[in-house]
Amino acid sequence: MIAEIIAVGTELLLGQIVNTNARFLSVELSKLGINVYYQTVVGDNSERLRETLALALKRADIVILTGGLGPTKDDLTKETVAQVLDLPLELHEESLERIKDYFKRIHREMADNNIKQAYLPKGCYVLENNHGTAPGCIVEKDKKIVIMLPGPPKEMEPMFHHSVYPFLRKKTSDIIYSKVLRVFGIGESSLEQKIADLIENQTNPTIAPYAKQGEVTLRITAKSDDIEKAKKLIEPLEKAVRERFGIMVYGEDEESLEEVTCRLLMEKNITIATAESCTGGLLAEKITRIPGISQCFHMGVITYSNEAKQKILGVSAKTLERYGAVSSQTAMEMAEGIKKLSGADIGVSITGIAGPGGGSELKPVGLVYIGMATPDNCSCQELHLSGNRDRIRELTSMNALDMVRKYLQINLT
Amino acid sequence: MIAEIIAVGTELLLGQIVNTNARFLSVELSKLGINVYYQTVVGDNSERLRETLALALKRADIVILTGGLGPTKDDLTKETVAQVLDLPLELHEESLERIKDYFKRIHREMADNNIKQAYLPKGCYVLENNHGTAPGCIVEKDKKIVIMLPGPPKEMEPMFHHSVYPFLRKKTSDIIYSKVLRVFGIGESSLEQKIADLIENQTNPTIAPYAKQGEVTLRITAKSDDIEKAKKLIEPLEKAVRERFGIMVYGEDEESLEEVTCRLLMEKNITIATAESCTGGLLAEKITRIPGISQCFHMGVITYSNEAKQKILGVSAKTLERYGAVSSQTAMEMAEGIKKLSGADIGVSITGIAGPGGGSELKPVGLVYIGMATPDNCSCQELHLSGNRDRIRELTSMNALDMVRKYLQINLT
Repeated sequence: MIAEIIAVGTELLLGQIVNTNARFLSVELSKLGINVYYQTVVGDNSERLRETLALALKRADIVILTGGLGPTKDDLTKETVAQVLDLPLELHEESLERIKDYFKRIHREMADNNIKQAYLPKGCYVLENNHGTAPGCIVEKDKKIVIMLPGPPKEMEPMFHHSVYPFLRKKTSDIIYSKVLRVFGIGESSLEQKIADLIENQTNPTIAPYAKQGEVTLRITAKSDDIEKAKKLIEPLEKAVRERFGIMVYGEDEESLEEVTCRLLMEKNITIATAESCTGGLLAEKITRIPGISQCFHMGVITYSNEAKQKILGVSAKTLERYGAVSSQTAMEMAEGIKKLSGADIGVSITGIAGPGGGSELKPVGLVYIGMATPDNCSCQELHLSGNRDRIRELTSMNALDMVRKYLQINLT
Repeated sequence: MIAEIIAVGTELLLGQIVNTNARFLSVELSKLGINVYYQTVVGDNSERLRETLALALKRADIVILTGGLGPTKDDLTKETVAQVLDLPLELHEESLERIKDYFKRIHREMADNNIKQAYLPKGCYVLENNHGTAPGCIVEKDKKIVIMLPGPPKEMEPMFHHSVYPFLRKKTSDIIYSKVLRVFGIGESSLEQKIADLIENQTNPTIAPYAKQGEVTLRITAKSDDIEKAKKLIEPLEKAVRERFGIMVYGEDEESLEEVTCRLLMEKNITIATAESCTGGLLAEKITRIPGISQCFHMGVITYSNEAKQKILGVSAKTLERYGAVSSQTAMEMAEGIKKLSGADIGVSITGIAGPGGGSELKPVGLVYIGMATPDNCSCQELHLSGNRDRIRELTSMNALDMVRKYLQINLT
C-alpha cells in the first residue's frame, strides 16, 4: 500500500513551524509497512489544496491530511476534501456535544465559529479528539482512503495512535514488527562501530541506529506474515546487541530514561530527593513527569546561590571556599544534605557550569558534578559536556537519572 | 515571484529526519518577498523526482531543491535536473580541486565516487561549499530558476546566506517586513473574534493569528519597496491590536514568556523564589533557562508531599487539614513561606492536580492555584485547565510566569 502525506497550513509555507507531523506519520506508516512516496505542504488555499489532493489520490491508496480543521475561515481542509470527493458536509451532533463539553471543562465560552468544526463529510468514520476541539475523520470512497487529522501534534499524535493506527493495521497484510533498544552512555559513531558486523549482514531483521539527544536508539525490525514469527526473528539480534552493550541498554521501545528510573524506584519502593544548581529544577521536573511518583519523590530543592546551598543543605562554607561551588566535594555535601533534609533513601545533587558565562580555564563551561548519597555510600561523577546551555542542562539531568538507574539495577536486584 | 521547495531524500519519507530545510528556506524566501505555495518531499527516485520537478516548473518561477548531491548512486538530483532541463553535466575543475582540498584538510582520503560531485549542469552558476564536499548550483533556463543545494543544514544554510540570498535579492524588488505580537491569556478563537474586522479588511499590512501552546501569536506583515516604509505601514495596525488586548500582549517577535518575565526581573533588580508542587520544578527550570538569572533567582523548592510543605515552607497543618493541599489557602502560605525562607522580593507558589490520577468531583484534575507573595501583598489565582499531565504542568508554569510579568509591569514601572 502507498500513502501520501499532505500538511495544510500557510504557517508551514512561511516557515513559522516545522512540519514534524510529516515525520511522525512517516515513522508510523513505515512501522505498518506502508510506503510513503511524497510529503506535500500546501497553504490555506482551497484551489491549490484541491489540486494537491487530486494528484495525491491518483498516486496513492491512502492520503493523510493534517491541519486546516480549526474553527476559522482559513481552515478549509474538510470543505475541500468533501468537494473533491463529492460528499456533503453534515452536522455531527456527538462531535458538537464533545466540543461544547470541552469548553465547559476549560471554563471558556464556545465561540460560534467552533460549530463549524462539528460538520463532517457524510458517511465518514469520526475520530474523537481528546486533546482539543477538532474531530478528525476517515473517508473511504472509490477504493481510496482519505484521513483528516488536526494540525497540532498534541492532538494529532494521540488521535493517530488511538484510532488511525488500528484502522490501518486491519488494511495491511505483512506484519512489520519493531523493537527499539535504548542505549545511554555511548555516542552514535562508537555504537555503530561496535555493531558494524551486525549492520553489514542485516537482511531480515534489519537493525538501524538513530542518535537522539544524549542517547542512541537501535531499531530492530522484522517482516513476516505472523507477529509471533516476527518476534522470533528479532530475538537473536537483540541478544547480540544486549551482550555487547550490557547495562548501557537502559530500556525498550517508548520508555524514556526518566520512565525507567522512576519505574524502578516505584517497584523497589525507594524514595529519592533532588538538590540542583545549574539544572535549575530540570531533574525534579523530569522525575515528576511520571504519574504516581509522589510515592517516591517528596521533595527537591534548587539551590542556585552559595548561600542557599549552605542554608538549606548545610554545605560547609569551608568546602565552598576551598573547592568552589562546582566541585565533587560540594556535590557530595549537597547530596548528603538533601538526603538528610528529606529523609529519602537516595539524595541526588547537581552542580556545574551550564554557560554561556561563568566558565574559566580551570572550570570551563560544561564541567558538571553529580553527587549521589545512598544508604551506604556517597559517590560523585564528573562530566565534561559540550554544547549550549540547554544541551548541557538536558544531558546533565539525563546523566543523573542514569546514575540512579544503574544504582537501582546493580545494587537492588 | 513564486518559489517552490523540493527536498529530496528517502530518509525524510521514512521519518528518520525532519525537513528543517524547508522551514529555513521558507523563512528566508518570505523575507525576500518571494511566495512559497508548495513544499514537497520526494525520495531518491529519479522518475518521481522528474515528475515533481516538472510540475514545480509549471507552477513556480523558482524551484529550490535540497539533498541528493552526495557521492553515492542514490544521489541523483543533479542528473535528474539536467535531464529535465535538457542540459549536459560537465566536469567543473575548480570544484574538483575544492573537493580534493577538503579531504586534505580533514586528513581523509578522497573516495573515487566523490569525483561525481564535481559534475555540474553546463552553464550553471556554481555555489561554493565551505562546509562539505557537494557544490550547489543555480541554473537559469526558459525564464525559470532552478537552485540545487546540499541536504545537510550545516552546508545548506551558509551556502544560502553566502550565495543564494544575494542572487535572489537582485531578482526581487519588494521588501517584506514582519512583526509578531505575542498574547497570553486568551484562546485563538476569541482573539480572532476580537479582531475580526481587522482580519476582514487586511490587504497591506496583513495580520495572521497563530495558536501555540498556551498562547497566541499575531503576525503583522507589510510589503514595500523600502524597509522604513514597511515599518511605518505596520504601526497603525499594531497600535489597534495593542489597544484591544492591552496587557495581554506580553512581547514581540521571538521573545518567550520566560524571557520577558526574567528580563523584567533583571531590569528592575527584583529577586524571586519558587515553591512548586504539581509542576515539580518546571517553573524554576523555565526561569533558569535564562542566562544571568542567578542575579534574581537564588532558590526554589519542590514540596511534593504535605510533610515537605510543612517542614520547608511552614504551611500550617491546620490549613492542610481544613482546606487541603490544593487550595488557595495552601498556595498563599507556600508563597509566603518561600518568600520568607529565601529572603526574595517575590515568592511564587504552585499547587494543583496535574493528573491523570488524584482528582475528585470537588477538586478535579486541572484545578490549580498559583500564589504570589510580594512586598506588600499576597494574592492567588485559581485555574481550571484541561488536557494531559504535561499540558496542565506547562500551562500552569506559563500562567505563573505571566502573573509575575503582569505584576512587574503594572506595579513596578
